[in-house]
Amino acid sequence: MTGDINMIIVMKPGASEASIKNVKQIVENKGLQTHISSGQEVTVIGVIGDKSKLEQGNIEIAPEVDKIVPVTESYKLSNRKFHPESSKIKVGNTIIGGDEFTIMSGPCSVESEEQILQTAFAIKKAGAQILRGGAYKPRTSPYAFQGLEERGLQLMKEAKDATGLNIVCEVTSLEAIESAVKYVDMLQIGTRNMQNFYLLKEAGKTGLPILLKRGMAATIDEWLNAAEYIMAEGNPNVVLCERGIRTFETATRNTLDLSAVPVIKQKSHLPIIVDPSHATGVRDYVAPLSKASLAVGADGLMIESHPDPKTALSDGPQSLTFDQFEELMGELKTIAPLFKKTL
Amino acid sequence: MTGDINMIIVMKPGASEASIKNVKQIVENKGLQTHISSGQEVTVIGVIGDKSKLEQGNIEIAPEVDKIVPVTESYKLSNRKFHPESSKIKVGNTIIGGDEFTIMSGPCSVESEEQILQTAFAIKKAGAQILRGGAYKPRTSPYAFQGLEERGLQLMKEAKDATGLNIVCEVTSLEAIESAVKYVDMLQIGTRNMQNFYLLKEAGKTGLPILLKRGMAATIDEWLNAAEYIMAEGNPNVVLCERGIRTFETATRNTLDLSAVPVIKQKSHLPIIVDPSHATGVRDYVAPLSKASLAVGADGLMIESHPDPKTALSDGPQSLTFDQFEELMGELKTIAPLFKKTL
Amino acid sequence: MTGDINMIIVMKPGASEASIKNVKQIVENKGLQTHISSGQEVTVIGVIGDKSKLEQGNIEIAPEVDKIVPVTESYKLSNRKFHPESSKIKVGNTIIGGDEFTIMSGPCSVESEEQILQTAFAIKKAGAQILRGGAYKPRTSPYAFQGLEERGLQLMKEAKDATGLNIVCEVTSLEAIESAVKYVDMLQIGTRNMQNFYLLKEAGKTGLPILLKRGMAATIDEWLNAAEYIMAEGNPNVVLCERGIRTFETATRNTLDLSAVPVIKQKSHLPIIVDPSHATGVRDYVAPLSKASLAVGADGLMIESHPDPKTALSDGPQSLTFDQFEELMGELKTIAPLFKKTL
Amino acid sequence: MTGDINMIIVMKPGASEASIKNVKQIVENKGLQTHISSGQEVTVIGVIGDKSKLEQGNIEIAPEVDKIVPVTESYKLSNRKFHPESSKIKVGNTIIGGDEFTIMSGPCSVESEEQILQTAFAIKKAGAQILRGGAYKPRTSPYAFQGLEERGLQLMKEAKDATGLNIVCEVTSLEAIESAVKYVDMLQIGTRNMQNFYLLKEAGKTGLPILLKRGMAATIDEWLNAAEYIMAEGNPNVVLCERGIRTFETATRNTLDLSAVPVIKQKSHLPIIVDPSHATGVRDYVAPLSKASLAVGADGLMIESHPDPKTALSDGPQSLTFDQFEELMGELKTIAPLFKKTL
Repeated sequence: MTGDINMIIVMKPGASEASIKNVKQIVENKGLQTHISSGQEVTVIGVIGDKSKLEQGNIEIAPEVDKIVPVTESYKLSNRKFHPESSKIKVGNTIIGGDEFTIMSGPCSVESEEQILQTAFAIKKAGAQILRGGAYKPRTSPYAFQGLEERGLQLMKEAKDATGLNIVCEVTSLEAIESAVKYVDMLQIGTRNMQNFYLLKEAGKTGLPILLKRGMAATIDEWLNAAEYIMAEGNPNVVLCERGIRTFETATRNTLDLSAVPVIKQKSHLPIIVDPSHATGVRDYVAPLSKASLAVGADGLMIESHPDPKTALSDGPQSLTFDQFEELMGELKTIAPLFKKTL
Repeated sequence: MTGDINMIIVMKPGASEASIKNVKQIVENKGLQTHISSGQEVTVIGVIGDKSKLEQGNIEIAPEVDKIVPVTESYKLSNRKFHPESSKIKVGNTIIGGDEFTIMSGPCSVESEEQILQTAFAIKKAGAQILRGGAYKPRTSPYAFQGLEERGLQLMKEAKDATGLNIVCEVTSLEAIESAVKYVDMLQIGTRNMQNFYLLKEAGKTGLPILLKRGMAATIDEWLNAAEYIMAEGNPNVVLCERGIRTFETATRNTLDLSAVPVIKQKSHLPIIVDPSHATGVRDYVAPLSKASLAVGADGLMIESHPDPKTALSDGPQSLTFDQFEELMGELKTIAPLFKKTL
Repeated sequence: MTGDINMIIVMKPGASEASIKNVKQIVENKGLQTHISSGQEVTVIGVIGDKSKLEQGNIEIAPEVDKIVPVTESYKLSNRKFHPESSKIKVGNTIIGGDEFTIMSGPCSVESEEQILQTAFAIKKAGAQILRGGAYKPRTSPYAFQGLEERGLQLMKEAKDATGLNIVCEVTSLEAIESAVKYVDMLQIGTRNMQNFYLLKEAGKTGLPILLKRGMAATIDEWLNAAEYIMAEGNPNVVLCERGIRTFETATRNTLDLSAVPVIKQKSHLPIIVDPSHATGVRDYVAPLSKASLAVGADGLMIESHPDPKTALSDGPQSLTFDQFEELMGELKTIAPLFKKTL
Repeated sequence: MTGDINMIIVMKPGASEASIKNVKQIVENKGLQTHISSGQEVTVIGVIGDKSKLEQGNIEIAPEVDKIVPVTESYKLSNRKFHPESSKIKVGNTIIGGDEFTIMSGPCSVESEEQILQTAFAIKKAGAQILRGGAYKPRTSPYAFQGLEERGLQLMKEAKDATGLNIVCEVTSLEAIESAVKYVDMLQIGTRNMQNFYLLKEAGKTGLPILLKRGMAATIDEWLNAAEYIMAEGNPNVVLCERGIRTFETATRNTLDLSAVPVIKQKSHLPIIVDPSHATGVRDYVAPLSKASLAVGADGLMIESHPDPKTALSDGPQSLTFDQFEELMGELKTIAPLFKKTL
């Protein structure tokens, strides 16, 4: 047998010779090989070669096919199997991955020059490396504040120039990408756009590092396939961000899936950070989950902070004050060395 | 008391006078009124006036606030409360809503002239009103077939011209919208783009009827807010499509939420159709769930069909053959009158 | 190759000969056979024989094992593969399954003689075959009404004697079973006890027909394994009841999974009924979902009804009045013949 | 206004005087008071007094009622509002809660004297305080190993006597409780029985400390209500255990909800530990999630260990070897002081 079994086709008990032959032909017509194991009742057919030639499983409806079992993953570039060493991604003058524990912070939305500058100085002083701030806001209701758009990007750039922080902004359209590339060090793809494949490709083409948030209903497999869209454009600079998934629990806005960190570390070489602010929607839970993120092996955090959370135009309830942020940073700096991370 | 209570703020037990006064001031500073009910321990503050001025709940972090309860929905144009009569939406030469039971059918992807013409003639003969066919395909893996793009739209138009069927195609970007408006009768927003608000606005601006699929992790409330994005652009022509939500069950690809039909009928005046093909991913389940959709009160169906499902480039396992489709149409025609629907 | 492949073990790419040999030995030491297919990188090992000897997958942690794929289901007695004909279950003087469409109705809780007698006469008149009524109530809070216990069973029996209806009651403990067998025609295992395996076995031992509600977070596979617990006690009289699963959606109490009906019909020979009252928790959604249940192929319904829902001690909001129930029964009788069901 | 508003009833816009009066009467007939706020369109009715008298919301179906909003929680004894100080629970000669970080470890199932004694000595040496071991096993399939039952309890007691460790065993029936009280220091209620209210009450009556695992589909609110069942029997000795919830993600067996730790700490005074072994089902993820559990503020861990995981009769894939367990314990001891915990 040359080549590997990439997919297994299980026939129904007692499947006819004709049905087995039919499946064999479908597979071989695509230029692939088969490897057949026949039992008394059940026949199992291994598919050898590039299974993507078979596309998504029409064999499932060939007569007497019981099920199709994929043996190998569909993502390649983001797969640790083919890239055993952990990646480090350069974002402006800082690095994400390896021994670094990178802190991104700032307001959900850029609201004014004063707000963003105040924030930038405060988080810089506390030890953050990257300023975040939303200029294009995907909001559930069309009647909610939608962001300052390009003016927001300009204010972010101003804050970068004033503090030396690197900046990351979410983009939600090609237009937003075209504006953002003029200002930012890293583009963010938000949870609602994780499977906006058009946007992924366009973001990939910029060559800028991409912060790819997990879709709130995306499996880890789909998430890595989304990363694959960016990387397939020739852009290896992807950082993943776990931000909570949708479940039945309502005590938190979403359910932060910290298990995703060791899972990603095993399946992929890409760095992964955690956003406890959006995951929980509750300020009091941000500090404990930040420490847990460090302990579980994440490469950094995205934490919302705001000069005056109670007046924030969006997501105030989950934003830390500067005092709270500084206190948390102090705690993280104390514990980071125990987890072999530099902060 | 003039105006209505749109939001209720519950203070923590024993909240101080100062905290209560603080909340009162935040609300009144936005030009809204308050209505305070104080018990022995708990004080409840009603907010009177346009709560959107308060944006998304920063009051939640004011001292001693326990919780915020919205009293009214954030969607207006799609809300039956303000539009009691059920809407009927004109799509080409057909109507969705009212007594009509509208059938959309066709392949997941347009693959060739022969494939789409064959399908169009077959579904037309069986009694469908609208041909569906994907030209821009959002696929989990970047290595899967991505669609014929504009060439696919041209083939759809050809099929329309040959059969008189109306056509609907999914759009995934502004570029796709700009191409599609030249050919189609209805634009489809897919499940992965339900909260791609940029795309919703651009689709809304075209004025074309929009088929808005439910996001696979979207609540009904979020779905109606997504419709609101389209309608807020001055385009009232929205048809909703239930296509299954993501749950823990794996026997079907997603879990078809047929309860959503009576819920939508109660909360909104917009028509709603059901897509059992994508919901289940299994051909054998399409017919029973199609009949259930009619019985539960839906306004139509989107059903995948293909001349030769086992060779389909995408979603073959859930596509009906023309014989199967014709048989199902026969059954639906028989039972439709019992549910006061015309087919 | 004699015997069938029941499980497939996929080794990691490049697994050593020693690791492959190790797995082979573990399997063969259990008296099973292996069938090895080696590619350039990946080796796939088929396990032939009774895989239950391997218990739940410790092979997963043998060195260099990538994954285990079960080929066959763990449930046997409830599996249609080994019992192709659909089962009909006798409950008192009525039959569930086959062409029958069986209606169970009554209050969530038995509250008084008057209430249960009134209900029994009303549903009998409307055409129901089985009276339901809770005597042992599993309630989220210990401070909520917990049921009349044995007194409730006596009242149910009284209603049975007065009307000739068959009766079904939920049991929540061995004590409850011991009381119930003296009165009822069918025992119900509720959603919270679907994996109370002790209770399943004890219920199985009674030989009485069992109505097995789906656990609100149970997969269909787990549900059929729960049925297997009952059947393995020598009791083949199991009727399944879909009653909604837990999802992120909050517009309904749970999400009714009507796809489960065709899935069960394909995988199992057991009858399945639907409970739209508990699934949605909203009276207005009960009628449309009842009709959908009939249309999708269910064998009956469980519908809550109450003489005066607004005074009900539990689940009033989802109970139908007698007028509403009678109206719904009229509609169901009209449409049943179209779905080849007798009512 | 004397007394507190415990529930808010929102009427539909334009509700009639008669409907409002009707609701007022229903409430007042139960001996409760109302507080009515009428706007131009919407009337909001506060309910003052013990809302449990109204049972679960039949008011929802009174004419023109839009929705019911509970203001206060239904659990009292487990609620931090009424018991601000964190509880410490004595289990044998050890304490759970406060500054302690308690480690429970052992095999999923007790299999033999040798296995359990080996394990007990190994975990004792590594620093654990409590030995776990299943004697009554709730297994998905009736054909899987069901535990040694009373013989298993005896072996656990033997291990306790030999090592001085405290022991915890799961109970699944009244019979199992009656046996277990003769041997164990703590009873465990498993995830599948979290809403087996009969079992909760019987376990509560023993007075023994109870380890209450979260139901895999239970909200935190339901979990605290389950604790309430035990505590309402006069038994305040409840320790909660987060063990993962059911979601759509399949890379881990369940999704460990570490956010539940700070949520529980805020809402309840009860201690909470974490079980990363059952949550993930994957040995490699246990160590990182154990450290994260300590960092997030949990009071301890339950970790599966086994002398030879690859021969374990259940849950081998998630069990640590003794070397792995000892290494993890070393790491936990190093980091515990930074999180103000003693180990």
